[in-house]
Amino acid sequence: MKQADLSSYLVHPNPDNGALTSQVTGRDHTGADVDVDVVTERGLTVYLNKQEIVTLMTLGDHPQYLAVGFLLNQNMLQADDVITGIDYDEELEVAIVRTQRETDYEDKMKKKVRTSGCAQGTVFGDIMEKFDTIDLSQDATLKTSWLYQLARQINTTPSIYQKAGAIHGCVLCHKAQPLVYMEDVGRHNAIDKIAGYMHMHKIQPHDKCFYTTGRLTSEMVIKTVQMQIPILISRSGFTAWGVDLAQKAGLTLIGRAKGRKFLVLAGFERVHYDVDVDQIADEPKHAGRKNGD
Amino acid sequence: MKQADLSSYLVHPNPDNGALTSQVTGRDHTGADVDVDVVTERGLTVYLNKQEIVTLMTLGDHPQYLAVGFLLNQNMLQADDVITGIDYDEELEVAIVRTQRETDYEDKMKKKVRTSGCAQGTVFGDIMEKFDTIDLSQDATLKTSWLYQLARQINTTPSIYQKAGAIHGCVLCHKAQPLVYMEDVGRHNAIDKIAGYMHMHKIQPHDKCFYTTGRLTSEMVIKTVQMQIPILISRSGFTAWGVDLAQKAGLTLIGRAKGRKFLVLAGFERVHYDVDVDQIADEPKHAGRKNGD
Repeated sequence: MKQADLSSYLVHPNPDNGALTSQVTGRDHTGADVDVDVVTERGLTVYLNKQEIVTLMTLGDHPQYLAVGFLLNQNMLQADDVITGIDYDEELEVAIVRTQRETDYEDKMKKKVRTSGCAQGTVFGDIMEKFDTIDLSQDATLKTSWLYQLARQINTTPSIYQKAGAIHGCVLCHKAQPLVYMEDVGRHNAIDKIAGYMHMHKIQPHDKCFYTTGRLTSEMVIKTVQMQIPILISRSGFTAWGVDLAQKAGLTLIGRAKGRKFLVLAGFERVHYDVDVDQIADEPKHAGRKNGD
Repeated sequence: MKQADLSSYLVHPNPDNGALTSQVTGRDHTGADVDVDVVTERGLTVYLNKQEIVTLMTLGDHPQYLAVGFLLNQNMLQADDVITGIDYDEELEVAIVRTQRETDYEDKMKKKVRTSGCAQGTVFGDIMEKFDTIDLSQDATLKTSWLYQLARQINTTPSIYQKAGAIHGCVLCHKAQPLVYMEDVGRHNAIDKIAGYMHMHKIQPHDKCFYTTGRLTSEMVIKTVQMQIPILISRSGFTAWGVDLAQKAGLTLIGRAKGRKFLVLAGFERVHYDVDVDQIADEPKHAGRKNGD
Protein backbone atom coordinates (compact mmCIF):
# COMPACT_ATOMS: atom_id res chain seq x y z
CA MET A 1 0.00 0.00 0.00
CA LYS A 2 1.23 3.49 -0.80
CA GLN A 3 2.51 5.33 2.26
CA ALA A 4 0.76 8.49 3.33
CA ASP A 5 2.10 11.95 2.68
CA LEU A 6 3.23 13.03 6.16
CA SER A 7 3.74 16.70 5.28
CA SER A 8 0.28 17.79 6.45
CA TYR A 9 0.88 16.46 9.98
CA LEU A 10 1.86 18.68 12.88
CA VAL A 11 2.41 15.50 14.93
CA HIS A 12 2.42 11.91 13.74
CA PRO A 13 3.43 8.61 15.38
CA ASN A 14 7.09 7.75 15.57
CA PRO A 15 7.38 3.95 15.35
CA ASP A 16 11.19 4.31 15.25
CA ASN A 17 11.25 5.63 18.84
CA GLY A 18 12.71 2.58 20.59
CA ALA A 19 11.36 3.63 24.00
CA LEU A 20 7.77 3.02 22.92
CA THR A 21 8.09 -0.67 22.11
CA SER A 22 10.19 -3.55 23.35
CA GLN A 23 10.83 -7.06 22.12
CA VAL A 24 9.71 -10.28 23.76
CA THR A 25 10.37 -13.82 22.66
CA GLY A 26 7.26 -15.93 22.27
CA ARG A 27 6.58 -19.39 20.91
CA ASP A 28 4.25 -19.70 17.94
CA HIS A 29 1.68 -22.33 16.88
CA THR A 30 4.40 -24.50 15.35
CA GLY A 31 6.47 -24.46 18.55
CA ALA A 32 9.09 -22.13 17.07
CA ASP A 33 10.56 -19.19 19.02
CA VAL A 34 9.70 -15.80 17.54
CA ASP A 35 10.63 -12.26 18.53
CA VAL A 36 7.73 -9.80 18.56
CA ASP A 37 7.44 -6.08 19.13
CA VAL A 38 5.18 -5.08 22.03
CA VAL A 39 3.92 -1.73 23.20
CA THR A 40 5.31 -0.42 26.49
CA GLU A 41 3.16 0.97 29.27
CA ARG A 42 4.55 3.21 31.99
CA GLY A 43 3.13 5.30 34.79
CA LEU A 44 2.70 9.06 34.67
CA THR A 45 1.74 10.73 37.92
CA VAL A 46 0.12 14.08 37.24
CA TYR A 47 0.31 16.95 39.72
CA LEU A 48 -1.61 20.20 39.40
CA ASN A 49 0.51 22.69 41.36
CA LYS A 50 0.91 21.13 44.83
CA GLN A 51 -1.77 18.48 44.46
CA GLU A 52 -1.25 14.91 43.23
CA ILE A 53 -4.20 14.18 40.93
CA VAL A 54 -3.83 10.80 39.27
CA THR A 55 -1.44 8.14 38.01
CA LEU A 56 -2.11 7.29 34.36
CA MET A 57 -0.78 4.21 32.59
CA THR A 58 0.48 5.45 29.24
CA LEU A 59 2.60 4.68 26.20
CA GLY A 60 4.94 7.36 27.52
CA ASP A 61 5.33 9.83 24.66
CA HIS A 62 4.20 13.48 24.94
CA PRO A 63 3.83 13.44 28.76
CA GLN A 64 3.38 17.22 28.94
CA TYR A 65 0.50 17.21 26.47
CA LEU A 66 -1.06 14.25 28.26
CA ALA A 67 -0.87 15.94 31.66
CA VAL A 68 -2.37 19.21 30.41
CA GLY A 69 -5.02 17.45 28.31
CA PHE A 70 -6.07 15.19 31.18
CA LEU A 71 -6.52 18.18 33.51
CA LEU A 72 -8.45 20.09 30.82
CA ASN A 73 -10.78 17.21 30.08
CA GLN A 74 -11.43 16.74 33.81
CA ASN A 75 -12.34 20.45 34.09
CA MET A 76 -9.44 21.00 36.50
CA LEU A 77 -7.76 23.36 34.06
CA GLN A 78 -9.86 26.05 32.38
CA ALA A 79 -9.42 27.22 28.79
CA ASP A 80 -8.19 30.61 30.01
CA ASP A 81 -5.82 29.29 32.68
CA VAL A 82 -2.27 30.54 32.27
CA ILE A 83 0.19 27.66 32.52
CA THR A 84 3.41 29.00 34.02
CA GLY A 85 5.39 25.79 33.60
CA ILE A 86 5.34 22.03 33.19
CA ASP A 87 8.03 19.99 34.93
CA TYR A 88 8.48 16.47 33.66
CA ASP A 89 10.81 14.02 35.39
CA GLU A 90 11.28 10.96 33.21
CA GLU A 91 12.91 8.89 35.94
CA LEU A 92 10.26 9.61 38.57
CA GLU A 93 7.50 9.44 35.92
CA VAL A 94 5.97 12.65 37.22
CA ALA A 95 4.55 15.66 35.39
CA ILE A 96 3.76 18.81 37.37
CA VAL A 97 1.55 21.40 35.71
CA ARG A 98 1.85 24.86 37.30
CA THR A 99 -0.74 27.58 36.83
CA GLN A 100 -1.04 31.26 37.69
CA ARG A 101 -4.38 30.54 39.36
CA GLU A 102 -4.30 28.75 42.70
CA THR A 103 -6.04 25.39 42.41
CA ASP A 104 -7.53 22.98 44.94
CA TYR A 105 -9.48 19.93 43.86
CA GLU A 106 -9.59 18.01 47.13
CA ASP A 107 -13.41 18.00 47.03
CA LYS A 108 -13.58 17.08 43.38
CA MET A 109 -11.35 14.09 43.91
CA LYS A 110 -13.54 12.85 46.75
CA LYS A 111 -16.46 12.95 44.37
CA LYS A 112 -14.61 10.75 41.93
CA VAL A 113 -14.53 7.92 44.42
CA ARG A 114 -18.24 7.48 44.08
CA THR A 115 -18.61 7.69 40.33
CA SER A 116 -15.53 6.31 38.65
CA GLY A 117 -15.40 2.89 37.11
CA CYS A 118 -16.91 4.10 33.87
CA ALA A 119 -16.32 1.75 30.99
CA GLN A 120 -12.97 3.31 30.22
CA GLY A 121 -10.67 5.66 32.03
CA THR A 122 -11.50 7.95 34.86
CA VAL A 123 -14.58 10.10 35.00
CA PHE A 124 -15.03 12.66 37.72
CA GLY A 125 -18.41 13.27 39.23
CA ASP A 126 -19.14 16.59 37.60
CA ILE A 127 -17.86 15.95 34.11
CA MET A 128 -21.38 16.28 32.73
CA GLU A 129 -21.78 19.80 34.15
CA LYS A 130 -19.85 21.38 31.32
CA PHE A 131 -21.28 18.98 28.72
CA ASP A 132 -24.76 20.48 29.01
CA THR A 133 -23.57 24.04 28.42
CA ILE A 134 -21.65 23.53 25.17
CA ASP A 135 -22.94 24.68 21.78
CA LEU A 136 -21.10 22.98 18.94
CA SER A 137 -20.42 24.99 15.79
CA GLN A 138 -23.30 24.83 13.32
CA ASP A 139 -21.06 26.01 10.47
CA ALA A 140 -18.82 22.97 10.46
CA THR A 141 -19.29 20.57 7.57
CA LEU A 142 -17.87 17.24 6.52
CA LYS A 143 -17.75 16.40 2.84
CA THR A 144 -17.77 12.67 2.26
CA SER A 145 -14.79 13.14 -0.08
CA TRP A 146 -12.82 14.44 2.92
CA LEU A 147 -13.90 11.46 4.99
CA TYR A 148 -12.55 9.02 2.38
CA GLN A 149 -9.30 10.96 1.99
CA LEU A 150 -8.78 11.12 5.75
CA ALA A 151 -9.30 7.39 6.18
CA ARG A 152 -6.85 6.63 3.38
CA GLN A 153 -4.21 9.01 4.74
CA ILE A 154 -4.50 7.82 8.33
CA ASN A 155 -4.56 4.11 7.51
CA THR A 156 -1.34 4.42 5.52
CA THR A 157 0.53 6.54 8.07
CA PRO A 158 3.29 4.50 9.78
CA SER A 159 2.27 3.93 13.39
CA ILE A 160 3.07 2.03 16.57
CA TYR A 161 -0.13 0.11 15.85
CA GLN A 162 1.32 -1.25 12.62
CA LYS A 163 4.52 -2.20 14.42
CA ALA A 164 3.20 -3.72 17.65
CA GLY A 165 -0.63 -3.68 17.73
CA ALA A 166 -2.58 -3.38 21.00
CA ILE A 167 -2.85 0.41 20.86
CA HIS A 168 -5.42 3.08 20.02
CA GLY A 169 -5.10 6.03 17.71
CA CYS A 170 -6.87 9.41 17.60
CA VAL A 171 -6.39 12.04 14.95
CA LEU A 172 -7.38 15.70 14.90
CA CYS A 173 -8.26 16.68 11.33
CA HIS A 174 -9.14 19.77 9.31
CA LYS A 175 -11.18 19.14 6.16
CA ALA A 176 -9.30 16.41 4.25
CA GLN A 177 -6.05 16.81 6.24
CA PRO A 178 -4.97 14.89 9.33
CA LEU A 179 -3.10 17.29 11.65
CA VAL A 180 -2.31 15.68 15.01
CA TYR A 181 -2.14 11.88 15.27
CA MET A 182 -1.61 10.49 18.78
CA GLU A 183 -1.54 6.88 19.93
CA ASP A 184 -1.76 5.35 23.40
CA VAL A 185 -2.56 2.15 25.25
CA GLY A 186 -5.79 3.73 26.46
CA ARG A 187 -7.77 5.71 23.89
CA HIS A 188 -8.65 8.34 26.52
CA ASN A 189 -4.93 9.12 26.83
CA ALA A 190 -4.62 9.59 23.06
CA ILE A 191 -7.50 12.07 23.17
CA ASP A 192 -6.08 13.87 26.20
CA LYS A 193 -2.72 14.28 24.42
CA ILE A 194 -4.53 15.97 21.55
CA ALA A 195 -6.43 18.20 23.98
CA GLY A 196 -3.12 19.20 25.57
CA TYR A 197 -1.56 19.90 22.18
CA MET A 198 -4.53 22.02 21.09
CA HIS A 199 -4.42 24.05 24.30
CA MET A 200 -0.69 24.71 24.20
CA HIS A 201 -0.66 25.59 20.50
CA LYS A 202 -3.96 27.51 20.59
CA ILE A 203 -5.67 25.41 17.93
CA GLN A 204 -9.37 26.20 17.56
CA PRO A 205 -11.76 23.23 17.67
CA HIS A 206 -14.78 24.65 15.83
CA ASP A 207 -13.83 23.66 12.27
CA LYS A 208 -12.05 20.41 13.14
CA CYS A 209 -13.05 16.78 13.22
CA PHE A 210 -11.86 13.81 15.22
CA TYR A 211 -10.99 10.43 13.76
CA THR A 212 -10.50 7.51 16.15
CA THR A 213 -9.83 3.81 15.83
CA GLY A 214 -11.79 2.92 18.96
CA ARG A 215 -15.43 2.38 19.78
CA LEU A 216 -17.78 5.34 20.07
CA THR A 217 -18.69 4.94 23.72
CA SER A 218 -20.21 7.55 25.97
CA GLU A 219 -16.75 8.57 27.14
CA MET A 220 -15.50 9.28 23.61
CA VAL A 221 -18.55 11.40 22.88
CA ILE A 222 -18.30 13.33 26.15
CA LYS A 223 -14.63 14.13 25.60
CA THR A 224 -15.19 15.24 21.99
CA VAL A 225 -18.05 17.53 22.99
CA GLN A 226 -16.03 18.94 25.90
CA MET A 227 -13.26 19.75 23.45
CA GLN A 228 -15.91 21.51 21.28
CA ILE A 229 -15.06 19.45 18.21
CA PRO A 230 -18.29 19.13 16.19
CA ILE A 231 -17.58 15.89 14.25
CA LEU A 232 -16.42 12.46 15.47
CA ILE A 233 -15.58 9.56 13.11
CA SER A 234 -14.60 5.98 13.93
CA ARG A 235 -13.84 2.76 12.12
CA SER A 236 -15.50 0.89 14.97
CA GLY A 237 -18.93 0.37 16.44
CA PHE A 238 -20.94 2.48 18.88
CA THR A 239 -23.09 2.08 21.96
CA ALA A 240 -26.66 3.26 22.50
CA TRP A 241 -25.57 5.77 25.14
CA GLY A 242 -22.86 7.16 22.87
CA VAL A 243 -25.44 7.78 20.14
CA ASP A 244 -27.90 9.25 22.61
CA LEU A 245 -25.35 11.73 24.02
CA ALA A 246 -24.27 12.74 20.50
CA GLN A 247 -27.88 13.46 19.56
CA LYS A 248 -28.38 15.56 22.71
CA ALA A 249 -25.19 17.54 22.13
CA GLY A 250 -25.73 18.00 18.38
CA LEU A 251 -22.47 16.20 17.62
CA THR A 252 -22.05 14.63 14.19
CA LEU A 253 -21.27 10.98 14.97
CA ILE A 254 -20.07 8.58 12.28
CA GLY A 255 -19.26 4.93 12.95
CA ARG A 256 -18.13 1.85 11.03
CA ALA A 257 -16.22 3.98 8.53
CA LYS A 258 -14.34 1.39 6.48
CA GLY A 259 -13.65 1.36 2.77
CA ARG A 260 -16.63 2.94 1.07
CA LYS A 261 -18.97 2.34 3.99
CA PHE A 262 -19.88 4.52 6.94
CA LEU A 263 -22.90 5.15 9.09
CA VAL A 264 -23.98 8.60 10.32
CA LEU A 265 -25.76 8.31 13.68
CA ALA A 266 -26.33 11.90 14.74
CA GLY A 267 -25.80 15.43 13.43
CA PHE A 268 -26.80 14.45 9.87
CA GLU A 269 -26.99 18.06 8.66
CA ARG A 270 -23.20 18.56 8.70
CA VAL A 271 -22.54 15.70 6.25
CA HIS A 272 -22.40 16.66 2.56
CA TYR A 273 -22.51 13.77 0.13
CA ASP A 274 -20.23 15.01 -2.67
CA VAL A 275 -18.86 11.68 -3.91
CA ASP A 276 -20.24 8.99 -6.18
CA VAL A 277 -19.72 5.98 -3.85
CA ASP A 278 -19.32 3.65 -6.82
CA GLN A 279 -16.01 5.42 -7.50
CA ILE A 280 -14.67 4.54 -4.02
CA ALA A 281 -12.79 1.26 -3.68
CA ASP A 282 -13.84 -1.09 -0.93
CA GLU A 283 -11.20 -1.68 1.71
CA PRO A 284 -8.64 -4.33 0.75
CA LYS A 285 -8.88 -7.56 2.77
CA HIS A 286 -5.64 -6.89 4.60
CA ALA A 287 -5.89 -3.20 5.37
CA GLY A 288 -3.42 -1.70 7.81
CA ARG A 289 -6.09 -1.32 10.45
CA LYS A 290 -8.40 -3.72 12.20
CA ASN A 291 -11.41 -2.64 14.16
CA GLY A 292 -10.26 -0.95 17.29
CA ASP A 293 -11.60 -1.94 20.68
CA MET B 1 -20.85 -21.20 9.59
CA LYS B 2 -22.09 -24.05 11.77
CA GLN B 3 -23.50 -22.86 15.06
CA ALA B 4 -21.84 -23.96 18.28
CA ASP B 5 -23.20 -26.68 20.51
CA LEU B 6 -24.50 -24.68 23.49
CA SER B 7 -25.03 -27.68 25.77
CA SER B 8 -21.64 -27.37 27.48
CA TYR B 9 -22.35 -23.82 28.63
CA LEU B 10 -23.49 -22.98 32.15
CA VAL B 11 -24.07 -19.40 30.95
CA HIS B 12 -23.95 -18.06 27.41
CA PRO B 13 -24.96 -14.74 25.85
CA ASN B 14 -28.62 -14.11 25.14
CA PRO B 15 -28.84 -11.89 22.06
CA ASP B 16 -32.64 -12.27 22.12
CA ASN B 17 -32.86 -10.32 25.40
CA GLY B 18 -34.33 -7.08 24.09
CA ALA B 19 -33.12 -5.06 27.08
CA LEU B 20 -29.48 -5.45 26.07
CA THR B 21 -29.72 -3.76 22.68
CA SER B 22 -31.80 -1.02 21.14
CA GLN B 23 -32.32 0.22 17.61
CA VAL B 24 -31.20 3.53 16.19
CA THR B 25 -31.76 4.91 12.71
CA GLY B 26 -28.59 6.00 10.95
CA ARG B 27 -27.80 7.13 7.43
CA ASP B 28 -25.35 5.07 5.41
CA HIS B 29 -22.70 5.94 2.82
CA THR B 30 -25.32 6.07 0.05
CA GLY B 31 -27.50 8.49 2.04
CA ALA B 32 -30.12 5.83 2.81
CA ASP B 33 -31.71 5.45 6.25
CA VAL B 34 -30.85 2.19 7.99
CA ASP B 35 -31.88 0.70 11.33
CA VAL B 36 -29.04 -0.75 13.36
CA ASP B 37 -28.83 -2.65 16.64
CA VAL B 38 -26.71 -1.00 19.31
CA VAL B 39 -25.56 -2.17 22.71
CA THR B 40 -27.11 -0.47 25.73
CA GLU B 41 -25.08 0.86 28.65
CA ARG B 42 -26.61 1.52 32.05
CA GLY B 43 -25.34 2.43 35.48
CA LEU B 44 -24.98 -0.04 38.35
CA THR B 45 -24.17 1.45 41.73
CA VAL B 46 -22.59 -1.17 43.97
CA TYR B 47 -22.93 -1.07 47.74
CA LEU B 48 -21.06 -3.33 50.15
CA ASN B 49 -23.29 -3.41 53.22
CA LYS B 50 -23.81 0.25 54.17
CA GLN B 51 -21.07 1.68 51.99
CA GLU B 52 -21.49 2.98 48.43
CA ILE B 53 -18.45 1.72 46.53
CA VAL B 54 -18.68 2.56 42.84
CA THR B 55 -20.96 3.21 39.88
CA LEU B 56 -20.14 0.94 36.97
CA MET B 57 -21.33 1.46 33.40
CA THR B 58 -22.48 -1.93 32.21
CA LEU B 59 -24.48 -3.85 29.62
CA GLY B 60 -26.90 -4.56 32.45
CA ASP B 61 -27.25 -8.34 32.53
CA HIS B 62 -26.18 -10.38 35.59
CA PRO B 63 -25.96 -7.40 37.98
CA GLN B 64 -25.60 -9.65 41.04
CA TYR B 65 -22.62 -11.49 39.60
CA LEU B 66 -21.08 -8.21 38.48
CA ALA B 67 -21.42 -6.64 41.93
CA VAL B 68 -19.94 -9.64 43.75
CA GLY B 69 -17.18 -10.11 41.17
CA PHE B 70 -16.20 -6.44 41.26
CA LEU B 71 -15.90 -6.52 45.06
CA LEU B 72 -13.90 -9.75 44.94
CA ASN B 73 -11.49 -8.47 42.31
CA GLN B 74 -10.99 -5.28 44.33
CA ASN B 75 -10.15 -7.38 47.42
CA MET B 76 -13.15 -5.93 49.25
CA LEU B 77 -14.77 -9.35 49.48
CA GLN B 78 -12.64 -12.30 50.59
CA ALA B 79 -12.96 -15.81 49.21
CA ASP B 80 -14.31 -17.04 52.57
CA ASP B 81 -16.76 -14.18 53.13
CA VAL B 82 -20.32 -15.35 53.70
CA ILE B 83 -22.74 -13.39 51.52
CA THR B 84 -26.03 -13.12 53.38
CA GLY B 85 -27.94 -11.48 50.54
CA ILE B 86 -27.80 -9.41 47.38
CA ASP B 87 -30.52 -6.82 46.80
CA TYR B 88 -30.85 -5.61 43.24
CA ASP B 89 -33.21 -2.77 42.33
CA GLU B 90 -33.55 -2.53 38.58
CA GLU B 91 -35.24 0.85 38.60
CA LEU B 92 -32.70 2.48 40.93
CA GLU B 93 -29.85 0.59 39.23
CA VAL B 94 -28.43 -0.39 42.62
CA ALA B 95 -26.98 -3.68 43.86
CA ILE B 96 -26.33 -4.12 47.59
CA VAL B 97 -24.09 -7.00 48.63
CA ARG B 98 -24.52 -7.96 52.30
CA THR B 99 -21.97 -9.98 54.22
CA GLN B 100 -21.76 -11.62 57.63
CA ARG B 101 -18.48 -9.82 58.24
CA GLU B 102 -18.67 -6.10 58.97
CA THR B 103 -16.85 -4.18 56.23
CA ASP B 104 -15.41 -0.67 56.03
CA TYR B 105 -13.36 0.45 53.05
CA GLU B 106 -13.32 4.20 53.64
CA ASP B 107 -9.51 4.20 53.72
CA LYS B 108 -9.18 1.97 50.71
CA MET B 109 -11.38 4.23 48.63
CA LYS B 110 -9.30 7.25 49.55
CA LYS B 111 -6.27 5.41 48.26
CA LYS B 112 -7.97 4.89 44.92
CA VAL B 113 -8.12 8.60 44.32
CA ARG B 114 -4.40 8.75 43.91
CA THR B 115 -3.86 5.71 41.74
CA SER B 116 -6.83 5.15 39.49
CA GLY B 117 -6.88 6.10 35.84
CA CYS B 118 -5.24 2.86 34.79
CA ALA B 119 -5.64 2.12 31.11
CA GLN B 120 -8.96 0.42 31.70
CA GLY B 121 -11.41 0.35 34.54
CA THR B 122 -10.74 1.09 38.15
CA VAL B 123 -7.71 -0.08 40.03
CA PHE B 124 -7.43 0.40 43.75
CA GLY B 125 -4.13 1.26 45.33
CA ASP B 126 -3.38 -2.08 46.89
CA ILE B 127 -4.51 -4.42 44.15
CA MET B 128 -0.97 -5.65 43.68
CA GLU B 129 -0.70 -6.76 47.30
CA LYS B 130 -2.53 -10.00 46.68
CA PHE B 131 -0.98 -10.47 43.24
CA ASP B 132 2.45 -11.13 44.72
CA THR B 133 1.24 -13.85 47.07
CA ILE B 134 -0.57 -16.08 44.56
CA ASP B 135 0.83 -19.40 43.37
CA LEU B 136 -0.86 -20.57 40.19
CA SER B 137 -1.44 -24.28 39.74
CA GLN B 138 1.52 -26.05 38.19
CA ASP B 139 -0.62 -29.04 37.22
CA ALA B 140 -2.80 -27.17 34.76
CA THR B 141 -2.18 -27.89 31.11
CA LEU B 142 -3.49 -26.63 27.81
CA LYS B 143 -3.46 -28.96 24.83
CA THR B 144 -3.34 -27.07 21.55
CA SER B 145 -6.24 -29.24 20.33
CA TRP B 146 -8.36 -27.75 23.16
CA LEU B 147 -7.31 -24.25 22.17
CA TYR B 148 -8.50 -24.77 18.60
CA GLN B 149 -11.78 -26.37 19.73
CA LEU B 150 -12.44 -23.54 22.20
CA ALA B 151 -11.86 -20.86 19.59
CA ARG B 152 -14.19 -22.60 17.13
CA GLN B 153 -16.93 -23.09 19.74
CA ILE B 154 -16.75 -19.55 21.09
CA ASN B 155 -16.60 -17.86 17.68
CA THR B 156 -19.75 -19.65 16.55
CA THR B 157 -21.75 -19.05 19.74
CA PRO B 158 -24.53 -16.49 19.13
CA SER B 159 -23.64 -13.31 21.00
CA ILE B 160 -24.52 -9.67 21.49
CA TYR B 161 -21.27 -8.95 19.67
CA GLN B 162 -22.56 -10.63 16.53
CA LYS B 163 -25.81 -8.69 16.80
CA ALA B 164 -24.59 -5.21 17.69
CA GLY B 165 -20.76 -5.11 17.92
CA ALA B 166 -18.95 -2.72 20.28
CA ILE B 167 -18.75 -5.20 23.15
CA HIS B 168 -16.20 -7.48 24.82
CA GLY B 169 -16.50 -11.15 25.62
CA CYS B 170 -14.76 -13.31 28.25
CA VAL B 171 -15.20 -17.06 28.61
CA LEU B 172 -14.27 -19.37 31.47
CA CYS B 173 -13.27 -22.73 30.01
CA HIS B 174 -12.36 -26.23 31.17
CA LYS B 175 -10.21 -28.24 28.79
CA ALA B 176 -11.96 -28.03 25.38
CA GLN B 177 -15.28 -26.81 26.82
CA PRO B 178 -16.46 -23.22 27.24
CA LEU B 179 -18.45 -22.96 30.49
CA VAL B 180 -19.34 -19.35 31.32
CA TYR B 181 -19.46 -16.76 28.51
CA MET B 182 -20.10 -13.19 29.63
CA GLU B 183 -20.14 -10.02 27.54
CA ASP B 184 -20.01 -6.37 28.55
CA VAL B 185 -19.24 -2.89 27.25
CA GLY B 186 -16.08 -2.89 29.38
CA ARG B 187 -14.05 -6.08 29.38
CA HIS B 188 -13.33 -5.68 33.11
CA ASN B 189 -17.06 -6.01 33.75
CA ALA B 190 -17.24 -9.23 31.73
CA ILE B 191 -14.41 -10.66 33.85
CA ASP B 192 -15.98 -9.47 37.09
CA LYS B 193 -19.27 -11.17 36.16
CA ILE B 194 -17.38 -14.43 35.74
CA ALA B 195 -15.62 -13.91 39.08
CA GLY B 196 -19.01 -13.38 40.74
CA TYR B 197 -20.45 -16.48 39.08
CA MET B 198 -17.50 -18.62 40.16
CA HIS B 199 -17.76 -17.39 43.75
CA MET B 200 -21.48 -17.96 44.06
CA HIS B 201 -21.40 -21.39 42.40
CA LYS B 202 -18.14 -22.46 44.08
CA ILE B 203 -16.28 -23.17 40.83
CA GLN B 204 -12.59 -23.88 41.37
CA PRO B 205 -10.16 -21.89 39.22
CA HIS B 206 -7.09 -24.14 39.28
CA ASP B 207 -7.87 -26.30 36.24
CA LYS B 208 -9.62 -23.60 34.19
CA CYS B 209 -8.56 -21.25 31.46
CA PHE B 210 -9.77 -17.84 30.37
CA TYR B 211 -10.53 -16.86 26.78
CA THR B 212 -11.06 -13.19 25.99
CA THR B 213 -11.63 -11.11 22.89
CA GLY B 214 -9.78 -8.08 24.26
CA ARG B 215 -6.18 -7.04 24.50
CA LEU B 216 -3.89 -8.63 27.07
CA THR B 217 -3.11 -5.54 29.10
CA SER B 218 -1.73 -5.41 32.61
CA GLU B 219 -5.26 -5.20 34.01
CA MET B 220 -6.39 -8.41 32.27
CA VAL B 221 -3.34 -10.26 33.58
CA ILE B 222 -3.76 -8.94 37.13
CA LYS B 223 -7.43 -9.95 37.26
CA THR B 224 -6.74 -13.44 35.86
CA VAL B 225 -3.97 -14.05 38.39
CA GLN B 226 -6.13 -12.72 41.23
CA MET B 227 -8.80 -15.18 40.21
CA GLN B 228 -6.11 -17.92 40.33
CA ILE B 229 -6.80 -19.01 36.76
CA PRO B 230 -3.49 -20.30 35.36
CA ILE B 231 -4.07 -19.79 31.60
CA LEU B 232 -5.21 -16.71 29.63
CA ILE B 233 -5.89 -16.73 25.88
CA SER B 234 -6.84 -13.86 23.58
CA ARG B 235 -7.49 -13.24 19.90
CA SER B 236 -5.89 -9.82 20.30
CA GLY B 237 -2.51 -8.31 20.99
CA PHE B 238 -0.63 -7.70 24.22
CA THR B 239 1.38 -5.03 25.95
CA ALA B 240 4.92 -5.30 27.35
CA TRP B 241 3.69 -4.84 30.90
CA GLY B 242 1.03 -7.52 30.46
CA VAL B 243 3.70 -9.98 29.30
CA ASP B 244 6.03 -8.94 32.11
CA LEU B 245 3.39 -9.47 34.82
CA ALA B 246 2.42 -12.85 33.35
CA GLN B 247 6.05 -13.97 33.46
CA LYS B 248 6.39 -12.83 37.09
CA ALA B 249 3.19 -14.60 38.14
CA GLY B 250 3.88 -17.77 36.16
CA LEU B 251 0.69 -17.28 34.15
CA THR B 252 0.43 -18.97 30.76
CA LEU B 253 -0.32 -16.08 28.37
CA ILE B 254 -1.36 -16.67 24.77
CA GLY B 255 -2.12 -13.87 22.33
CA ARG B 256 -3.12 -13.43 18.69
CA ALA B 257 -4.98 -16.76 18.69
CA LYS B 258 -6.73 -16.76 15.30
CA GLY B 259 -7.28 -19.62 12.92
CA ARG B 260 -4.26 -21.89 13.20
CA LYS B 261 -2.03 -19.19 14.64
CA PHE B 262 -1.28 -18.27 18.24
CA LEU B 263 1.66 -16.94 20.21
CA VAL B 264 2.61 -18.12 23.71
CA LEU B 265 4.27 -15.31 25.67
CA ALA B 266 4.73 -16.74 29.15
CA GLY B 267 4.19 -19.99 31.04
CA PHE B 268 5.34 -22.11 28.07
CA GLU B 269 5.52 -25.33 30.15
CA ARG B 270 1.72 -25.68 30.39
CA VAL B 271 1.21 -25.78 26.61
CA HIS B 272 1.20 -29.26 25.04
CA TYR B 273 1.45 -29.33 21.26
CA ASP B 274 -0.76 -32.33 20.38
CA VAL B 275 -2.01 -31.22 16.95
CA ASP B 276 -0.48 -31.25 13.49
CA VAL B 277 -1.05 -27.59 12.59
CA ASP B 278 -1.29 -28.43 8.90
CA GLN B 279 -4.58 -30.13 9.74
CA ILE B 280 -6.06 -26.90 11.16
CA ALA B 281 -7.88 -24.62 8.75
CA ASP B 282 -6.92 -20.98 8.67
CA GLU B 283 -9.65 -18.61 9.79
CA PRO B 284 -12.15 -17.74 7.03
CA LYS B 285 -11.95 -14.16 5.79
CA HIS B 286 -15.24 -13.25 7.34
CA ALA B 287 -15.07 -14.93 10.74
CA GLY B 288 -17.65 -13.96 13.33
CA ARG B 289 -15.08 -12.11 15.36
CA LYS B 290 -12.81 -9.21 14.70
CA ASN B 291 -9.88 -8.34 16.90
CA GLY B 292 -11.21 -6.96 20.12
CA ASP B 293 -9.96 -3.68 21.52
